Amino acid sequence: MDDISAEPSTGRRQRGEGRGAAARRASRSGGGAGPAMPYITRKIRTYEVLDEEGLELIERNADTVLEEIGIEFRDDAEALELWREAGADVKGERVHFPKGLCRELLKTAPSEFTWHARNPERNVRIGGNATVFAPVYGSPFVRDLEGVRRYATLEDFRNFVKLAYMAPSIHSSGGTVCEPVDIPVNKRHLDMVYSHIKYSDKPFMGSVTAPERAEDSVAMAKLVFGDEFVENNCVMLNLINANSPMVFDETMLGAAKVYARHNQASVISPFILSGAMSPVTVAGTLTQILAEVLAGASFTQLIRPGAPVLFGTFAASISMQSGAPTFGTPEPALVSYGAAQLARRMGLPFRTGGSLCASKVPDAQAAHESANTLNMTLLAGANFVLHAAGWLEGGLAACYEKFMIDQDQLGMMQKMAEGVDLSESGQAMDAIREVGPGAHYLGCAHTQANFQTAFYRSALADNNSFEQWEIEGRKRIEDRANALCRSWLDAYEAPALDPAIDEALLAYVADRKNSMPDAFS
Amino acid sequence: MDDISAEPSTGRRQRGEGRGAAARRASRSGGGAGPAMPYITRKIRTYEVLDEEGLELIERNADTVLEEIGIEFRDDAEALELWREAGADVKGERVHFPKGLCRELLKTAPSEFTWHARNPERNVRIGGNATVFAPVYGSPFVRDLEGVRRYATLEDFRNFVKLAYMAPSIHSSGGTVCEPVDIPVNKRHLDMVYSHIKYSDKPFMGSVTAPERAEDSVAMAKLVFGDEFVENNCVMLNLINANSPMVFDETMLGAAKVYARHNQASVISPFILSGAMSPVTVAGTLTQILAEVLAGASFTQLIRPGAPVLFGTFAASISMQSGAPTFGTPEPALVSYGAAQLARRMGLPFRTGGSLCASKVPDAQAAHESANTLNMTLLAGANFVLHAAGWLEGGLAACYEKFMIDQDQLGMMQKMAEGVDLSESGQAMDAIREVGPGAHYLGCAHTQANFQTAFYRSALADNNSFEQWEIEGRKRIEDRANALCRSWLDAYEAPALDPAIDEALLAYVADRKNSMPDAFS
Repeated sequence: MDDISAEPSTGRRQRGEGRGAAARRASRSGGGAGPAMPYITRKIRTYEVLDEEGLELIERNADTVLEEIGIEFRDDAEALELWREAGADVKGERVHFPKGLCRELLKTAPSEFTWHARNPERNVRIGGNATVFAPVYGSPFVRDLEGVRRYATLEDFRNFVKLAYMAPSIHSSGGTVCEPVDIPVNKRHLDMVYSHIKYSDKPFMGSVTAPERAEDSVAMAKLVFGDEFVENNCVMLNLINANSPMVFDETMLGAAKVYARHNQASVISPFILSGAMSPVTVAGTLTQILAEVLAGASFTQLIRPGAPVLFGTFAASISMQSGAPTFGTPEPALVSYGAAQLARRMGLPFRTGGSLCASKVPDAQAAHESANTLNMTLLAGANFVLHAAGWLEGGLAACYEKFMIDQDQLGMMQKMAEGVDLSESGQAMDAIREVGPGAHYLGCAHTQANFQTAFYRSALADNNSFEQWEIEGRKRIEDRANALCRSWLDAYEAPALDPAIDEALLAYVADRKNSMPDAFS
Repeated sequence: MDDISAEPSTGRRQRGEGRGAAARRASRSGGGAGPAMPYITRKIRTYEVLDEEGLELIERNADTVLEEIGIEFRDDAEALELWREAGADVKGERVHFPKGLCRELLKTAPSEFTWHARNPERNVRIGGNATVFAPVYGSPFVRDLEGVRRYATLEDFRNFVKLAYMAPSIHSSGGTVCEPVDIPVNKRHLDMVYSHIKYSDKPFMGSVTAPERAEDSVAMAKLVFGDEFVENNCVMLNLINANSPMVFDETMLGAAKVYARHNQASVISPFILSGAMSPVTVAGTLTQILAEVLAGASFTQLIRPGAPVLFGTFAASISMQSGAPTFGTPEPALVSYGAAQLARRMGLPFRTGGSLCASKVPDAQAAHESANTLNMTLLAGANFVLHAAGWLEGGLAACYEKFMIDQDQLGMMQKMAEGVDLSESGQAMDAIREVGPGAHYLGCAHTQANFQTAFYRSALADNNSFEQWEIEGRKRIEDRANALCRSWLDAYEAPALDPAIDEALLAYVADRKNSMPDAFS
């Protein structure tokens, strides 16, 4: 087994190093800290499944949906009033959009922006040819390192934040990396946001489960970044799910409004299980997704023109036999590829994909479904990728072993995104001349000069002989992932945090918790 | 679990059915026999990693390799003489090719052709937008249904032929689906070719391990197809590996000559573990592959202009730490994508990919590596795909469970290749109108009309709840694959074979075996 690319960051090693130094070190053999890059800059093309005619057809159909059928903005009088003022035809809670209105509003949305981390070396770009991976989001359960499936706790939450911090191919600390079910619902977000800030210095997401929790997220971010910085820069991405089909509800609208007002980014994501929340066809699903995103994303511009917003897509299907969600199948891949094209035409950054699966264990089913999704994610050109590591059971469980396996695969995607090196060294004509017919390249000068960075090196793949593998105990990849995970958690050191900021955050959390009833809300 | 697409063929059901009837049935719910299509017709685009400039650069470099360094044709005076006559500069066994010679010779090679099966319904196209999947090739070991790794036997060989026959997403019976180690080396090919003909009616591959075994393969094919038919049509694809770097050896040249003379197809495949048999870079590897294929493929046209020939690529890397082969990593994917582009520019059908992995068990490592390879295989536009199912341990073992898991994934690729349906039904505007905001699509008319063919249905993925999965015994996918494999083998019925042909084949095999010494050669 090789272990360079997957060498984790630790706080100790990371501190005080410039990005250049970290990158140089990460690319050296036996190397050390941190990611070679804080995010992926894709040098490869995007893959497309629709031609111009197909794209125009879906755009026309989405316009028809917006105008004729409309989108509901529920339990939010302010939203309806804003739409009325903007020129939409509002009937009850149903908003009908004149052709072109949403696109006109979206002209103020940035096509690219920087998502700031408290450590500027960890800042990432959102949009263009940048890709940012973030961990699993929202699982109430974990599959722990003893192989037990149980409710997630705050300790699990912190562990996943630590692992994402250490993983060189994960660029964001994410958001609800699991639900800390041992903390009351109304207080949970405070511990979550604090944990992201305390245990990682990668960019994190805010709470979206209630407008006041979004306000708390913004307030805590301001303690870290300063008031003015937050109002002028994106320091949080926030997941705003549409209640598909064609509904935005009070909770999500409330959070979206808070974040947009504070110039923070909304990821407007139709949550689609095709066959239930959308038609059973790819083109029909794309039409509905486009309509929902046009409505939701342009709404953020009504709140604050220029607020960053993403075209989000969560695409899966249901089994038409059991109604269960399915992942890694061809149809959602086609949906995501198509949605990525539609997003690029709109000029919005795009979110989709990840390492999705329905399996209950990190077995070959989990891996096939995850790999099918992840390969698509990279080639579609997704800019922001939730659920990139640790997702199991359709998202119901965050799995430590799968987290480790997935982060290794993310490293492969990062290498893949570099594309083909056509430099003189890449062409390697000297090597071919030196070696000639019938010899081997192992010892030639070009190989010696390049072997340390030539190939992606997995920390988890066992490439040894069967005999060696037997001697080493016939381990499956999840056994190796388990051991690696334990060693990372043992080696973890928190990144430096200004004690004054830490104190202020803790005081804020304590104060807010004291103002709340103890019971679960 | 859903099980329509993965419903196996059986001989009984298959007999006497036209392709149209089989296709119609396969696309129906609960459906029956055979593949919906005997091969994949890709409606999706190919993915490309090189631009025009990059392609021209590699082509120029390959020309330089051919002219300046040359390719060795070893222990084959006839080959050297043919090259001399064709205008090459032959020094010892090293052939130097004047610029353009190979490409000029290749003008006679067909860009597409039909590979005939004894059942014409199973004929496949090789080239263009067709993709044909074939099983694992060449494994001396099997991982059997008891989970034991042992030498393969003729019974295993027959089992894999039967499984490939039954799998709707496998289009060819393949070749050495495993090495029947219980049969002497000099007689093995007779049993292998007979088994392909007897236990399947899908197109099969010939023996390449010695010229006389290639002659036996042709002779047996003639007993099935008739002399004239074989001389005028392709009934066998044959794997001709280059001995990379830049060598073709006596054995492979001998087999290639036999097949080309009889108008059978050669798959000229540089066998590359980058870092050992080629430079450690993608562009360098591509250059060498192109040079080797140009030399090997054009050689078949010296033997018989017009003989079908494929641009083959087997791309993997080695671990620069242990020297072990690695699979499913980014670099070989980039090599294969690039090679596919080079093949299309040459106008030759292309072979690469499959479900490659280094893992010793069908775990998540095996699946990630296989899926990374297979997704690339489809998007690269590979025309012929060896090792598409059952490959384990870098090809050392053919695995029953993995075979079943892989064939399920192949079905997904087949569905993916259909692309996006933009018909009126595909657009599903009626469904969106009928359902409207906040409702669901489960019962709407459009869903009812389309759900049976809407989504690929895996026979092996468990999409049920955790609780249901627990009740059913906490099975991993390999457990389900094991059970499915046993049920297929139990249900297997051989396709009809004219008793006179069967008798003639058996007599040929017996006669040839009697003429040989018993000992292993």
